[in-house]
Amino acid sequence: MKYLQNINNPDDLKKLSLDQLEDVCVDLREFIIEQLSNNPGHFGSSLGTVELTVALHYLFNTPHDRLVWDVGHQAYGHKILTGRRDNFHTNRKLGGLSGFTNPAESEYDTFIAGHASTSISAALGMAVAASLRDEKRNIVAIIGDGSMTGGLAYEGLNNVCSQPNNLLIILNDNNMSIDNNVGGMQDYLVKLNTSYKYNKLRNKVYQGFKRRELISEKDKNLVLRFNNSIKSLLTKEQNLFEGFNLRYFGPVDGHDLPGLIRVLRNIKDMKGPRLLHIKTVKGKGYLHAEKAATIWHAPGLFNIETGERIVKSKANQPPLYQDVFGHTLVEMAEEDKSIIGVTPAMPTGCSMIYMMNKFPERSFDVGIAEAHAVTFSAGMAKEGLTPFCNIYSSFMQRAYDQVIHDVALQKLKVIMCLDRSGLVGADGPTHHGVFDLAYMRPIPNLVISAPYNEHELRNLMHTAVYGNDGPFVIRYTRGQGELTEWKNEPTILPIGKGRKLRSGNDIALLSLGTIGNSASKAIDKAEKMGISIAHYDMVFLKPLDEDMLDDIAKHFKNIITVEEGVVKGGFGSAVLEYLGDNHHININVHRIGIEDEFITHGTVNELQEIARIDENSIYDDILKVYNQLAKTETIKLVHNR
Amino acid sequence: MKYLQNINNPDDLKKLSLDQLEDVCVDLREFIIEQLSNNPGHFGSSLGTVELTVALHYLFNTPHDRLVWDVGHQAYGHKILTGRRDNFHTNRKLGGLSGFTNPAESEYDTFIAGHASTSISAALGMAVAASLRDEKRNIVAIIGDGSMTGGLAYEGLNNVCSQPNNLLIILNDNNMSIDNNVGGMQDYLVKLNTSYKYNKLRNKVYQGFKRRELISEKDKNLVLRFNNSIKSLLTKEQNLFEGFNLRYFGPVDGHDLPGLIRVLRNIKDMKGPRLLHIKTVKGKGYLHAEKAATIWHAPGLFNIETGERIVKSKANQPPLYQDVFGHTLVEMAEEDKSIIGVTPAMPTGCSMIYMMNKFPERSFDVGIAEAHAVTFSAGMAKEGLTPFCNIYSSFMQRAYDQVIHDVALQKLKVIMCLDRSGLVGADGPTHHGVFDLAYMRPIPNLVISAPYNEHELRNLMHTAVYGNDGPFVIRYTRGQGELTEWKNEPTILPIGKGRKLRSGNDIALLSLGTIGNSASKAIDKAEKMGISIAHYDMVFLKPLDEDMLDDIAKHFKNIITVEEGVVKGGFGSAVLEYLGDNHHININVHRIGIEDEFITHGTVNELQEIARIDENSIYDDILKVYNQLAKTETIKLVHNR
Repeated sequence: MKYLQNINNPDDLKKLSLDQLEDVCVDLREFIIEQLSNNPGHFGSSLGTVELTVALHYLFNTPHDRLVWDVGHQAYGHKILTGRRDNFHTNRKLGGLSGFTNPAESEYDTFIAGHASTSISAALGMAVAASLRDEKRNIVAIIGDGSMTGGLAYEGLNNVCSQPNNLLIILNDNNMSIDNNVGGMQDYLVKLNTSYKYNKLRNKVYQGFKRRELISEKDKNLVLRFNNSIKSLLTKEQNLFEGFNLRYFGPVDGHDLPGLIRVLRNIKDMKGPRLLHIKTVKGKGYLHAEKAATIWHAPGLFNIETGERIVKSKANQPPLYQDVFGHTLVEMAEEDKSIIGVTPAMPTGCSMIYMMNKFPERSFDVGIAEAHAVTFSAGMAKEGLTPFCNIYSSFMQRAYDQVIHDVALQKLKVIMCLDRSGLVGADGPTHHGVFDLAYMRPIPNLVISAPYNEHELRNLMHTAVYGNDGPFVIRYTRGQGELTEWKNEPTILPIGKGRKLRSGNDIALLSLGTIGNSASKAIDKAEKMGISIAHYDMVFLKPLDEDMLDDIAKHFKNIITVEEGVVKGGFGSAVLEYLGDNHHININVHRIGIEDEFITHGTVNELQEIARIDENSIYDDILKVYNQLAKTETIKLVHNR
Repeated sequence: MKYLQNINNPDDLKKLSLDQLEDVCVDLREFIIEQLSNNPGHFGSSLGTVELTVALHYLFNTPHDRLVWDVGHQAYGHKILTGRRDNFHTNRKLGGLSGFTNPAESEYDTFIAGHASTSISAALGMAVAASLRDEKRNIVAIIGDGSMTGGLAYEGLNNVCSQPNNLLIILNDNNMSIDNNVGGMQDYLVKLNTSYKYNKLRNKVYQGFKRRELISEKDKNLVLRFNNSIKSLLTKEQNLFEGFNLRYFGPVDGHDLPGLIRVLRNIKDMKGPRLLHIKTVKGKGYLHAEKAATIWHAPGLFNIETGERIVKSKANQPPLYQDVFGHTLVEMAEEDKSIIGVTPAMPTGCSMIYMMNKFPERSFDVGIAEAHAVTFSAGMAKEGLTPFCNIYSSFMQRAYDQVIHDVALQKLKVIMCLDRSGLVGADGPTHHGVFDLAYMRPIPNLVISAPYNEHELRNLMHTAVYGNDGPFVIRYTRGQGELTEWKNEPTILPIGKGRKLRSGNDIALLSLGTIGNSASKAIDKAEKMGISIAHYDMVFLKPLDEDMLDDIAKHFKNIITVEEGVVKGGFGSAVLEYLGDNHHININVHRIGIEDEFITHGTVNELQEIARIDENSIYDDILKVYNQLAKTETIKLVHNR
């Protein structure tokens, strides 16, 4: 590396010549590749923004000027240039740097951005604040074309011109979000790009128009618009952004550093909102990644030389829940033509890709558009189709009203699969799917379930289609299941019925979902200490198995509930409510789950320990409850269960 | 009325001549005006769609063809023409017709639509279903320009071209949502309309181009685009919709029935997705309404002849909570330049209009864009401003992720005022603000409060700004407050502290928010029966007043909680959790709130009775708890409170 080791903040960049800046880009790219080969993270996006990052920090006066990165994983270069180079090896690790931007980490980070499409709205807020206080401050939102498919980006864009501000939006167009991008906006951007070659023509044509007096130079606005009209005439496309009254510049090659600096310098201090469209290549500078952008979005460990990804052998290992979902969906779709798959931009992540390959006409990747995914599914369900709408738990927060207003109120048979529920690991607090049980539970008409293992996932998927006639939620965790022999013959489960996994005397432990497996191991340990615990897999959060709870209340004075979600309003709370409503008082309920705070990033195991929902913590809590019980023991257990 | 009384379903329309259809429009308009003068409802929107409604039911084969109305209050005419004329006097009344479309009410209603911007997504789902099953079925989404400002509409639009379908979108452009519409889309539509007069020019210009060989006729697509380019050249605007690869038709005068029928007939059976842009006037045919569309959006009772609105005299009456909010915000903004107002399209409804009039530069109506409202507020808060973001409780469901991801996680000082919490009355289940306590409570870092009366609302507004340094939720109900002398000198309340309203011995009643006033009256009654009840106004759902709860748990074995929200996961649940976690067992907690079902429409009083949260129901429950207590009385109350 020629320069990177000496760049400790953006001021160091400002001292360099243009040639030297190009070397910085080489260094930065090399550094990112080297770091990520050893410490997995989001790869392709940040390689694509190397030149942009250097240009922005070179030209703008950060942190006084504000850079608002949409989805922070395009911002690795930004982190490295703003004093975090030597810490970058801690990226996404417990106690280390966040994989996204985070103001708590650096003053150069202006906004947390783990979810897409927020940057225009947030930056507009900052730009309006600067205008109101007459502060001379540049505000730049950097948003990818994938993020542009989200409704929030549009709402932001639609508001950009309604108040005085000098926001600069940079559209980082790499023709790709995580998987291939979709929709009209995508087609639009591709075609807009073809206009590049026509740009030179336009002056010639304009002169021709003027000569023939088809247009007068008097009207300045007309002249301004004129070029764009010619462009759209010749490229057969309209410019969407100008429809929003934004001044549009581009498209510009986002890897041409001198060109980028030139354009940015020109438009940097212009008044009013502007949009600069740059074209970049995801994974730029690393050939393997350029060729397969989806795989190299977040490739895991890899060998730099060979481009070989270092994937742990999975022979004789249980499959991922994602793959169980994906394969089971295909199995079901083969038998039942009404079954449809819907995913908002996560076909690979949630393994709906299997369905897309097999039944492309019945599979819909709708882009980063969770609200649409749900309402679109509701429309299909209204006509008798059976959509499986698979959305990561933390992203379903974006479709909350659609679940209430478009699905639950109309009792439509949409099967909502909440992938990546619970603690997700390195992506951290923006991505943990810990609120879903609590936010879904208050909604009437929903069946809400969580499988204990792969067989139960398959059973629940079948039950949702053939054992129920309304909305159905299945939430399950990221990663490996429990059973290598995962392919059971699915059966229809009775709605709202739990199952007893083992008998015991001292304490009843009620779990929901895959965390029940950790609970089961904790119970094994406790049994060795002579503590006898009955274990119930409740399967359904809603309806709760009330018969089972009545029975448990009759026989136990101590209950432990275990869930991988927030305790406020969650599964344990539901148990408390039922017991309270039915005068099962005098029962001690100890709830295990995520306490009332956001959980940081790290490995899933580390985070489960921190949140005290891992096997050992559950065991500790069992001991605590048991010791209390022993101490205050006036209560004698009546029956041997 | 010449014809309307004989039209019992759309088939009756199909027998009429064009002239007769025009008479039907006259009848329909007269009928709507007459009905709404006696029975208040949404007025302007449905008058604007009279011709469109007649044209659609005349040309399309409903209900086999699907009409999907975006926000059902433009669909009164549709209801009247589809067998509900004689029931229309029950509109929005308990047991009567819903004020929005509702499939449970009629097979002609395809989707519930109380919230805006859903129609394109839902209709696309239906259109895709028809394509997949090779059904010959027309699907029409009818969406207003106001609804077009919502991100969900954009997500739908962006997906319309990515799958085979024959969706027809009708953009009903009345240049107005409830208040004046805002944003780039709005400007865009206004300008697009001016293109009408230029349309005739374009052929001439086109011929000129061809003669000069600036364009060749070989390329058919080019020719297709050509006209649009000329249009945008001349109107200085681009056509946004064509940017989405939709075929665009219009704008067409939406009150010219023959013209509308002609255009619709032409494009009705075309293949592929299309958008027809029609221009209508909100309140068309009733002069008073045409002149003041905001007031006549939902004017209440009025005198048809004079146009006088029949408003109940409010002298010596307590003010609306909305006005207390609005005036207090202005008061605060006068003293504190950091204070900002943000509303998504509800400046009149939530009374932010006072702030907009006084401090237009610090007030932002962002259109029907709740998610943007919250993230935009977060951006301002990041820069040290203090936004009051006022969103109706049921609409805040649309910004749930933004509250979690953009506000709470970053601990930004956004003050979220949830107007119209609780049961809202005639708007019904789509609009009841009953989920907010339950969905907000699980989110870390939030302070969540609900005022008992106007003074407490003002105190909480001050506390949010001067007594707290992070996100703050204030939820309050629609309508009249409790105090005519509402203008107290606001004080800063201690965060998370409740207050004891009265002492008592037998039962502790804990209430949150304005429903505490009903509880108080119920307690008065109970006292006359010799039942002694201590009443606590908890003020804060989060943090809960734990000291107070400890004290209550020490002295009472019977607790009643009262809230105007769902009981699953709400305030009562929070009390149960605290008692459970702190081993305050042996306490009977009776929770009063909305049970696990959607509540219909009717007057607020009727609905509170149905939901059993009115004064009498609370009194009944007090008796029930007391009688149980008397019956099972082994418990002696220890201290006199």
